[in-house]
Amino acid sequence: MQNTPAVDSPVIVSPAQFLEYWQGNRRLTRRVIEAFPEDQLFSFSVGGMRPFGVLAWEIQQVSELTLTGLLTGDWPMPDWREGVSQDRAELLARWDDLTARIEAELPQVDVAFFPQTHTLPWGEMSGWAAAIYNIDNEIHHRGQGYVYLRALGLEPPPFYER
Amino acid sequence: MQNTPAVDSPVIVSPAQFLEYWQGNRRLTRRVIEAFPEDQLFSFSVGGMRPFGVLAWEIQQVSELTLTGLLTGDWPMPDWREGVSQDRAELLARWDDLTARIEAELPQVDVAFFPQTHTLPWGEMSGWAAAIYNIDNEIHHRGQGYVYLRALGLEPPPFYER
Repeated sequence: MQNTPAVDSPVIVSPAQFLEYWQGNRRLTRRVIEAFPEDQLFSFSVGGMRPFGVLAWEIQQVSELTLTGLLTGDWPMPDWREGVSQDRAELLARWDDLTARIEAELPQVDVAFFPQTHTLPWGEMSGWAAAIYNIDNEIHHRGQGYVYLRALGLEPPPFYER
Repeated sequence: MQNTPAVDSPVIVSPAQFLEYWQGNRRLTRRVIEAFPEDQLFSFSVGGMRPFGVLAWEIQQVSELTLTGLLTGDWPMPDWREGVSQDRAELLARWDDLTARIEAELPQVDVAFFPQTHTLPWGEMSGWAAAIYNIDNEIHHRGQGYVYLRALGLEPPPFYER
């Protein structure tokens, strides 16, 4: 028999802390999106990689998938063609919509969902692994955005500020 | 009164999953260290940033601090001068030593430690925030290493393989 831990049980991370962690990362990534000159966000890159605006759309779509998956158990492959707009205002509007959804809906996720195994487009994994992979992906690509900004001679936002 | 959740309680992440998550990240970062040509690891960079070997030493030192802090409650500022060796073999040997320590010692961390507030060199935070900040820092700098490798015309190791 499984028991939901009491609110004050000493777990590694509480649902409220996990929400704050995700949102702190989203706030920082949003600042990186804003730090790019408008004409470089969807064009500049290093080493033949994708521009940061394209990476940010990928983060957005994987995060949408993750929230939906955690809530419903369905993990449909995103339509990557949706993430092709080269319009920062549209990206930020979608970003803010999802941030508000995460704030309202993540607390509705049944904590029992995290240890269960789910089938994602990229394999079978626990709800925890799916949730943290999403944030890993965001941090990974955001770190790449820091290099692009430095290569453009620009100061990225402080990493430790969330 | 606080209760330690039973092993099968539906928590977001179990201690065993958190260990596997950290170690999977360390395995990937190790592959990135190995992917650099020996003569570029401590010299090549983009945009005036630190070379990847220097970033890897920082990851190593922050990870040592984090393991020690979680075990003892002490979080002394690392001596960053220790991380100046430009010797990949030494870096990898220290890396592997810490990986073995994490494997053996992280399971000894009292799970009650994570929700408590600790004083780190960079501020007050929960044990969870300290533990995950350490991994965020690793992913952030590793993502930068991916750009350096691409700029060198090299294929980085797959991000999703841990």
